[in-house]
Amino acid sequence: MTTAPSTRPPGTSAGADALRALYADWAGIIATTPGLTTRLFRSIFDEWHQPTREPEDVTYREDTVGGVPGIWALPAGADSSQVMLYTHGGGFAVGSASSHRKLAAHVAKAAGVTAFVLDYRRAPEHPHPAQVEDGVAAFTALTERGVRPHDITTVGDSAGGNLAIAIPLALRERGLPLPGRVIAFSPWLDMENSGDTLVTNDATDALISVPLLDGMIAGVLADGKIDPRTPLANPLYADFTGFPRLYVNAGSAESLLDNATRVAAKAEAAGVDVTLSIGEGMQHVFPFLAGNAPEADAEIAAIAKWYRG
Amino acid sequence: MTTAPSTRPPGTSAGADALRALYADWAGIIATTPGLTTRLFRSIFDEWHQPTREPEDVTYREDTVGGVPGIWALPAGADSSQVMLYTHGGGFAVGSASSHRKLAAHVAKAAGVTAFVLDYRRAPEHPHPAQVEDGVAAFTALTERGVRPHDITTVGDSAGGNLAIAIPLALRERGLPLPGRVIAFSPWLDMENSGDTLVTNDATDALISVPLLDGMIAGVLADGKIDPRTPLANPLYADFTGFPRLYVNAGSAESLLDNATRVAAKAEAAGVDVTLSIGEGMQHVFPFLAGNAPEADAEIAAIAKWYRG
Repeated sequence: MTTAPSTRPPGTSAGADALRALYADWAGIIATTPGLTTRLFRSIFDEWHQPTREPEDVTYREDTVGGVPGIWALPAGADSSQVMLYTHGGGFAVGSASSHRKLAAHVAKAAGVTAFVLDYRRAPEHPHPAQVEDGVAAFTALTERGVRPHDITTVGDSAGGNLAIAIPLALRERGLPLPGRVIAFSPWLDMENSGDTLVTNDATDALISVPLLDGMIAGVLADGKIDPRTPLANPLYADFTGFPRLYVNAGSAESLLDNATRVAAKAEAAGVDVTLSIGEGMQHVFPFLAGNAPEADAEIAAIAKWYRG
Repeated sequence: MTTAPSTRPPGTSAGADALRALYADWAGIIATTPGLTTRLFRSIFDEWHQPTREPEDVTYREDTVGGVPGIWALPAGADSSQVMLYTHGGGFAVGSASSHRKLAAHVAKAAGVTAFVLDYRRAPEHPHPAQVEDGVAAFTALTERGVRPHDITTVGDSAGGNLAIAIPLALRERGLPLPGRVIAFSPWLDMENSGDTLVTNDATDALISVPLLDGMIAGVLADGKIDPRTPLANPLYADFTGFPRLYVNAGSAESLLDNATRVAAKAEAAGVDVTLSIGEGMQHVFPFLAGNAPEADAEIAAIAKWYRG
């Protein structure tokens, strides 16, 4: 089990402590609560919004898009013809549109666009490819509502970062138009737990551990019935030819760091326009600190600049 | 332990099932999870927002008022000179500004005013009167910002309904001006568990049970060190002379029903302008169903009419 570092990493802000502290708290609960159910995991991970400040001047609207429920984040003055289709993290099993509402709103607001945060079907009740199918359905429904595919950006974090990458791959398989951009915060892609940083960053990552990932993999891959090298479940095995512009980030302190670096290298080798951003000393999905830590605000500002570039 | 009714009460809407189902789920977790900590209770009860639809055309802003953190709900076109000071429920121990953001926003939007949802200090870390003190501090700070006392309404649900009543009582004790109105949804006032409906509604209430209340009472009253008849902790023992216009509601199916009926009768006997509304077949704090069940929408519309009256 991961043990959280007890002191602030050099060079990181006081504001950034909140995310590490929340993760350390969760890791403690996971370690000490016998028989923690998926139901209770979902309660706990819905607190993921806590390190994020309420973004100002954003309204919200519930909707169902392509049969998938979710929440629109509508920043004042946003260009409503441009949409971020946001898939939340949480190992495909936990997290929700609610836990990621504020994060998605911050990113959309910075870019001057709208966001729709999906409540896709979760594992283990719905293993792969239910999550990808929901993303494809929502994407397609947005285009049927008149949004141009190029004006859609798939965005997600952790397992949702996987989905943000897998949805365009699935669209390409079907010969459908692709989104104009893809953004993945600390994507979790490796369904084989093969990455070096699972070991080398184990001491600094406050949340992620191999046993936790093993449980999530069992859920989404139907207890081993689905091949962990399936490209739409593990995009480290995908062909990135013709993939949209890609922004990938991660924290240097996190165990999933090399999921980001590996997918960036693989996409770049396939000729994709890739931007990779590593937050020094940061934890998993550090943009959750939006409005509360300068590292997250700078990262989101950089994403907005990249979006417009 | 309360057992939730398995079928829909006659005359209630399909939408209203969501709140009863959430409560039944919580009651099941409480009954079956050994050693459920206050920490985990807080995770679970932060799901209280789930039965509430995101209200449209409302923005949010975090703030600290009188030293108390919280979230402003700012409906488009609201009269910003009028403020609902909202104290959330959760037995003084759980719940948060986050769990009640949407509910407070629905009520404020219907009345055409703003709301500030307090994250007051919670028990057991902070027993009575910390919660009342935080409410008084926030109320006073609002007046120092230029809001007229008469244009402030204290509003709350369950334990927060207790606070919405106790805050004006505390202000009166100190010779300070009172709010113009008080709204209490399913207030929990009785710190002695003396009410008949704890027994007569035990079979229909999906959540509240005497053991659950006993735990909350121990927390807020410092394990018996504070008298359960202290008027500011148990307003059923308060003098309501000169109290503001009061709107009280409850569901007919809930164990705390006679907290609402008793305080309404007591205030009315003291000459207060009281409106009592009982939602037939409804559970504890049924306005949580705002946007999803006609019973809640009708209740909130009635409150808005009362507010303007």
